[in-house]
Amino acid sequence: MPDSNPASHKRIRLGMVGGGQGAFIGAVHRMAARLDDQFTLVAGALSSDPARTALSAAELGIAPDRAYANFEAMAAAEAARPDGIEAVAIVTPNHLHVAPAMAFLKAGIHVICDKPLALNLEEAQSLAAVARTSKKLFILTHNYTGHPMVRQARSMVAQGLLGDIRVVNAEYVQDWLTQNIEASGQKQADWRTDPARSGAGGAVGDIGTHAFNLLCFVTGLQPQSLCAELSRFVPGRRLDDDVQILLRFEGGARGMLWASQVAPGNENALRLRVYGSKGGLEWSQEEPNHLWFTPFGEPKRLLTRAGAGAGPDAARVSRIPAGHPEGYLEAFATIYAEAAKAIRAAERGEAKPDDVLYPTIEDGLAGMRFITAAVASSAAGGVWQPFPEV
Amino acid sequence: MPDSNPASHKRIRLGMVGGGQGAFIGAVHRMAARLDDQFTLVAGALSSDPARTALSAAELGIAPDRAYANFEAMAAAEAARPDGIEAVAIVTPNHLHVAPAMAFLKAGIHVICDKPLALNLEEAQSLAAVARTSKKLFILTHNYTGHPMVRQARSMVAQGLLGDIRVVNAEYVQDWLTQNIEASGQKQADWRTDPARSGAGGAVGDIGTHAFNLLCFVTGLQPQSLCAELSRFVPGRRLDDDVQILLRFEGGARGMLWASQVAPGNENALRLRVYGSKGGLEWSQEEPNHLWFTPFGEPKRLLTRAGAGAGPDAARVSRIPAGHPEGYLEAFATIYAEAAKAIRAAERGEAKPDDVLYPTIEDGLAGMRFITAAVASSAAGGVWQPFPEV
Amino acid sequence: MPDSNPASHKRIRLGMVGGGQGAFIGAVHRMAARLDDQFTLVAGALSSDPARTALSAAELGIAPDRAYANFEAMAAAEAARPDGIEAVAIVTPNHLHVAPAMAFLKAGIHVICDKPLALNLEEAQSLAAVARTSKKLFILTHNYTGHPMVRQARSMVAQGLLGDIRVVNAEYVQDWLTQNIEASGQKQADWRTDPARSGAGGAVGDIGTHAFNLLCFVTGLQPQSLCAELSRFVPGRRLDDDVQILLRFEGGARGMLWASQVAPGNENALRLRVYGSKGGLEWSQEEPNHLWFTPFGEPKRLLTRAGAGAGPDAARVSRIPAGHPEGYLEAFATIYAEAAKAIRAAERGEAKPDDVLYPTIEDGLAGMRFITAAVASSAAGGVWQPFPEV
Amino acid sequence: MPDSNPASHKRIRLGMVGGGQGAFIGAVHRMAARLDDQFTLVAGALSSDPARTALSAAELGIAPDRAYANFEAMAAAEAARPDGIEAVAIVTPNHLHVAPAMAFLKAGIHVICDKPLALNLEEAQSLAAVARTSKKLFILTHNYTGHPMVRQARSMVAQGLLGDIRVVNAEYVQDWLTQNIEASGQKQADWRTDPARSGAGGAVGDIGTHAFNLLCFVTGLQPQSLCAELSRFVPGRRLDDDVQILLRFEGGARGMLWASQVAPGNENALRLRVYGSKGGLEWSQEEPNHLWFTPFGEPKRLLTRAGAGAGPDAARVSRIPAGHPEGYLEAFATIYAEAAKAIRAAERGEAKPDDVLYPTIEDGLAGMRFITAAVASSAAGGVWQPFPEV
Repeated sequence: MPDSNPASHKRIRLGMVGGGQGAFIGAVHRMAARLDDQFTLVAGALSSDPARTALSAAELGIAPDRAYANFEAMAAAEAARPDGIEAVAIVTPNHLHVAPAMAFLKAGIHVICDKPLALNLEEAQSLAAVARTSKKLFILTHNYTGHPMVRQARSMVAQGLLGDIRVVNAEYVQDWLTQNIEASGQKQADWRTDPARSGAGGAVGDIGTHAFNLLCFVTGLQPQSLCAELSRFVPGRRLDDDVQILLRFEGGARGMLWASQVAPGNENALRLRVYGSKGGLEWSQEEPNHLWFTPFGEPKRLLTRAGAGAGPDAARVSRIPAGHPEGYLEAFATIYAEAAKAIRAAERGEAKPDDVLYPTIEDGLAGMRFITAAVASSAAGGVWQPFPEV
Repeated sequence: MPDSNPASHKRIRLGMVGGGQGAFIGAVHRMAARLDDQFTLVAGALSSDPARTALSAAELGIAPDRAYANFEAMAAAEAARPDGIEAVAIVTPNHLHVAPAMAFLKAGIHVICDKPLALNLEEAQSLAAVARTSKKLFILTHNYTGHPMVRQARSMVAQGLLGDIRVVNAEYVQDWLTQNIEASGQKQADWRTDPARSGAGGAVGDIGTHAFNLLCFVTGLQPQSLCAELSRFVPGRRLDDDVQILLRFEGGARGMLWASQVAPGNENALRLRVYGSKGGLEWSQEEPNHLWFTPFGEPKRLLTRAGAGAGPDAARVSRIPAGHPEGYLEAFATIYAEAAKAIRAAERGEAKPDDVLYPTIEDGLAGMRFITAAVASSAAGGVWQPFPEV
Repeated sequence: MPDSNPASHKRIRLGMVGGGQGAFIGAVHRMAARLDDQFTLVAGALSSDPARTALSAAELGIAPDRAYANFEAMAAAEAARPDGIEAVAIVTPNHLHVAPAMAFLKAGIHVICDKPLALNLEEAQSLAAVARTSKKLFILTHNYTGHPMVRQARSMVAQGLLGDIRVVNAEYVQDWLTQNIEASGQKQADWRTDPARSGAGGAVGDIGTHAFNLLCFVTGLQPQSLCAELSRFVPGRRLDDDVQILLRFEGGARGMLWASQVAPGNENALRLRVYGSKGGLEWSQEEPNHLWFTPFGEPKRLLTRAGAGAGPDAARVSRIPAGHPEGYLEAFATIYAEAAKAIRAAERGEAKPDDVLYPTIEDGLAGMRFITAAVASSAAGGVWQPFPEV
Repeated sequence: MPDSNPASHKRIRLGMVGGGQGAFIGAVHRMAARLDDQFTLVAGALSSDPARTALSAAELGIAPDRAYANFEAMAAAEAARPDGIEAVAIVTPNHLHVAPAMAFLKAGIHVICDKPLALNLEEAQSLAAVARTSKKLFILTHNYTGHPMVRQARSMVAQGLLGDIRVVNAEYVQDWLTQNIEASGQKQADWRTDPARSGAGGAVGDIGTHAFNLLCFVTGLQPQSLCAELSRFVPGRRLDDDVQILLRFEGGARGMLWASQVAPGNENALRLRVYGSKGGLEWSQEEPNHLWFTPFGEPKRLLTRAGAGAGPDAARVSRIPAGHPEGYLEAFATIYAEAAKAIRAAERGEAKPDDVLYPTIEDGLAGMRFITAAVASSAAGGVWQPFPEV
């Protein structure tokens, strides 16, 4: 992945909604956007608090006249400028994804949006209707799909190296909500445990959707129905902090998915295991440069990013040699780099290059169907629930 | 664990039902019985094939007159001898556990029996009725409970170091039945995939019960109900080769249990994770000398068998210094060593020493309840099913 | 580590010597410089080939008039511009470090230079003489010192948590030179195996110096003498591809250092182990977010970046939460971020903030003393050789 | 490895010298001898203390008249009995290996002896002279050669799968002597740190010889010379507790060997890495069922005991299926099982079967040459020292 910029290194002008001082994911988006030098951040509606907006903009080198009070003003003003933003990153809590996304798409600005897509399925559908017909792109930052060895895994499944997929196991296990830290106002915990800002899903939405997306991205399986048990273990918590799910897929594959935020000792243990009639794969987010490939009846093989056994789909999105670990930010940056390629193609009036890959509005809808089905299943006592049609 | 024998080193006279040439688990029981030098094998009904019986007995140094054609003959003859066996190991397939177990108990001989307990719950209950009133002991070889670090884990949960248990995750994952090897007559696969000899559960009975037993042994949780999905992935297979289960426990804890025999790359991946309000534990059978302890908010700690952090319950059943791995046979041998202590106490008319610990008829019943509930849940389409009363 | 820029986000203007198309380390420096948004690349003497210079500059968005034919021209022109570069990154092979470094320092421009410092000790000393008296900073990119858990390790040793250091073991093991790829002109191998461009050390200079620097950085030990065995295993190779060293330190500590480029299966296995009278530490570059801490007589502890047990020195240079791996580029970026802080302080006429930490000209000299001693020891048949005075 | 006994299960009658109450290695030898049911312990000179001798014998089921006061009496009496011992296990400290070994060989009794072979090279040579001409076998318990995956490694090197061996790295790292526990009389530490009972080598003899033996066993390399640094880090210690060695082999291979007993956090970290022109191998005693095989340019492969990729040499000495870990005792038992096969062949007047493999007097001599050279090298200030001729 060269850091070269065709077209005389014209960086894509980027705006940001959310991501003011103290935000975690906003800073991540900015580092991701910078790493491969395809974007330049020039505008923002960074906070609902005017003072914080001004301060954040100054820190980030955004000109005062492009530090907006809200996304509506930003969309209108930037659309009107000859040097207005070409793309916007939406890094707000879940309840503030759909409205700005719609506004910017309608203003002719590409959208890069955090996940999960929306507060609920209806909202998501309304956005999907807009996005599907828009000439502008909608990119969802399911960032783990940016990892080279996740690409490798997907490619190996697609090539049939695992045979027919039979069993999948996805986990996303954390411990940071083991205690009621939202009570003390911890910013990240505060909105994630609030139904008004997170939607009906807690752990299932925040991290369960990542595990579900990863599972689908790698295997290509189509989910049919699920049986979910959502729990709130921490007294006073308003949303699930642990979710355990059985999954049925078209074609007969079966799966388990576990997401937890109350499992002490687990930091960010996103892990995927896939088993087919011919072999298996195992990938773990905390060791992202490795991929176990276990062809049945042969020794286990440890494939490494940029090492022997890693193919072109991994190489395309790999920056440095084998053994020099790439991590979370690099994978996130790959979503931005892929977005940049697609945006440049779109601006040239061309279709997205075949090998460019990023999560779309359809992945966002799939995530919302997953949350919706899981919440419904659990609410009904843990019954099998079909994935809602959209 | 000294290899000393009080009472002038009088080894316990042991007989064996099953375990003729070519058997896997019979040989394991014999090595386990030998390791700590508490037993001497002197009689056997090793095979239903007379020729194999004779040959096996010769190989094992069993006198020809104590190589019996069947367990009935053995029970009768040994009970009548002044130097008759004091204990019998039953190492036959599942359908041949209950009848010999009853026969030997009734003949006044202690029983060490392989798992799962029986072909079905009814059979199991009939044995339980006998065992509960017998003066002789019934020991079930859920061998993984013999591992020092499993004892350590159980002890730490009991001491409250994890706080209230919230979430448990148990897995037992293998790959040896990825293909239809029973079709070619592979002896181990043959009976395990045959309902007539295995019972209604395939993977759920053969290895799921181990995972379930381990989970209960360590946590002390009481299961309430489960929702199970049993699958037969290999064409032509007659019993489940993969089972995925959600579990509810008294007190509100939730769990997942996955057992598979069709997950390429997994050899014998029995693994337990337990999370409470104060901390977590993780143990894996393939690295049995290690136990992760993760008190919330503190660095993860790797406890090692006989090393720093391992307490008296682990030390009691540990033979060699830290860093010298003990394995599968050692843990199995601990079941025999514990059995020997209990048998000696019983023979002295004493109660079992408090610290001596082995799986009993009640654990066997619990396993049968688990199989029964899982099969019923899955047969009904994956509905929550209470654990049957017994 | 916020991505904020005091002083109205005035990025430091950066030039680059070397790093034209196809270069590995040049691209790494650029990504590192971008990640935390403290630098902007505006000038370069990117290649000795004019065509490649022009193309590379265009790709990188460097204006044509600031794409120089050579570093001398660049130093002169940039020093004369009001908007000239404030710092330069030197990313050429070893034989082209000293001359440009001197030129830019003399031109009043801060220098960020790749390692090892120079072609030989004499050259290094001449540069040191200049750097020590310069008002401009000299920063050497021993990038592994940028890892949070390396900072953590250093801090723990300094706090005395390991007691008196007794034994250290440093390794840097690779396999990419297992075959004679320089014969086929592979660019990275070509110059690294050429004494004219690498100096007298092959593996010992290229990666041995990293291991040595890491060892000294973490432990603070002062090396006294060494006994080295340099080998050239690949037929036709002109420099060592494997080096094995015994080390004596002031105060009595003893160490081993092994660097190899011919150990199949090793990608970039830089690893440090430190043992003292009270405890031990272990860190591995391929899992940089982890640090084992093993206080004697207590359970082993796995400290994690941004997790429990990681202190302020790690937190200072950590960007994202625990469990989200940071990697090679992040650590490299930290050298740039630290450089930026020091440069900004210097420009304000202030001393370097106490907590800001980066390798200096003295570390570069130490590395050259190490190479020199190792080459001399081996040439004399593997005799103990004192570290040369400088 | 069946537990069958041809010849009507005639167990080999075994005696033991040393191994009374409280001994570590004696108990290990007994468990090892029992596991595969080829030996029966019937006589012993278990302790120099008559009371402990009697007690130990009683505990072990040794008849009082075969519990001897010393090895001379035992050798004489047992040689005279028609049912006298056929083999003896010598499990005393180093200074008490040679005399009993000679006595039993001369009495026509096979010898199984702990390592290192002797107190010094002269003693070792005198024993070798006897052993080489004796009709009875001498087996040295370098137990780590019994591990299936060590056999596998040896076989792969011999087959040329690694190409020409270039670099080897052997380590045996412990922490149990981090403090001066010999001062408090800890039995294991007491004699191991006493030159009168251990010989001139401390760590180098106790564990360094294991690492050296393993290295030679797997690679078949012939050592030429070494350069050693022996250290005594713990105040008051009389023998080295850490040793760091460079090694030269015939044919040009180079190696490092590190043994330490003062590296906190290491329990019994014996590890071997071997690299050749075509590939590498890595094995670690604490995970003995695994072997990494890294053919150059291909993905790393994890071979497992009894799993895919493990060949007949591993299978011969493997007892249970893949994924069921075998450990320290099993490998030790394999030395006994191999000894039994060789003893039975010898008793039939046959040569040792080709595939039967155990360490011999020559390995013992090699170990003594290693200790001798290392001690001499270090005493001379760390100069290269040839391996002494024998």
